[in-house]
Amino acid sequence: MFELHARIQADTALVADWPLSRVLLMNDSTYPWLILVPRRAAIAEITDLETDDQRLLMEEVSRASLGLRRLVSPHRINIAALGNVVPQLHVHVIARFTDDPAWPRPVWGAVPATPYAPDALAERLTQWREVLE
Amino acid sequence: MFELHARIQADTALVADWPLSRVLLMNDSTYPWLILVPRRAAIAEITDLETDDQRLLMEEVSRASLGLRRLVSPHRINIAALGNVVPQLHVHVIARFTDDPAWPRPVWGAVPATPYAPDALAERLTQWREVLE
Repeated sequence: MFELHARIQADTALVADWPLSRVLLMNDSTYPWLILVPRRAAIAEITDLETDDQRLLMEEVSRASLGLRRLVSPHRINIAALGNVVPQLHVHVIARFTDDPAWPRPVWGAVPATPYAPDALAERLTQWREVLE
Repeated sequence: MFELHARIQADTALVADWPLSRVLLMNDSTYPWLILVPRRAAIAEITDLETDDQRLLMEEVSRASLGLRRLVSPHRINIAALGNVVPQLHVHVIARFTDDPAWPRPVWGAVPATPYAPDALAERLTQWREVLE
């Protein structure tokens, strides 16, 4: 049975459940940052997914990327499945701007997270749900 | 027409051409590190690829991951398409070990690259070509 890793749960807010992935917003207002977690049990690596699920994951990464593009028109989109800290497979889809505080480095570890204010988070989630439909 | 970005060309050695991607070995002996570059012109983001090519890319990322697993049995495989420095779409597929010098951080910028000695590079390429068949 799928269960979201406690660390991901703590760091994110739920946007939606897609056919394969739980779509989450990283609670860090520094970057528009989505995380996709395939809703399958005991999956660590992309190669642990069945081939059909790998295809779905690519479709959903693409869908998340297009949503980011529509909502914030970033300079680049960074996509990554790392899993060095949290073993459960999760894919980062992050909108990057040339004036963001980590640019051009990757975001991980660059600057401490700045959580959204509760109102701003609720508003952002509403926007994401609309644009990711 | 597809042309490999000069910076990627300078930092890597050719392993093989797959149906979609040029498969390259990063010339950094610190990590077993492959780079896949879709052989399509003017592609920056995954969403610039046609849907069929997106599927092929996922298959090839998976194939590269399984090859890394067979050859070096890593603790994790890090997969990433960043493109903040080199705009041409390229996907990193990197074998990570809990005793590598960047662990658990991402590899980018962690420690300076240590190029392979010429003999070691030639030997490594032979191994990669065998395991990635």
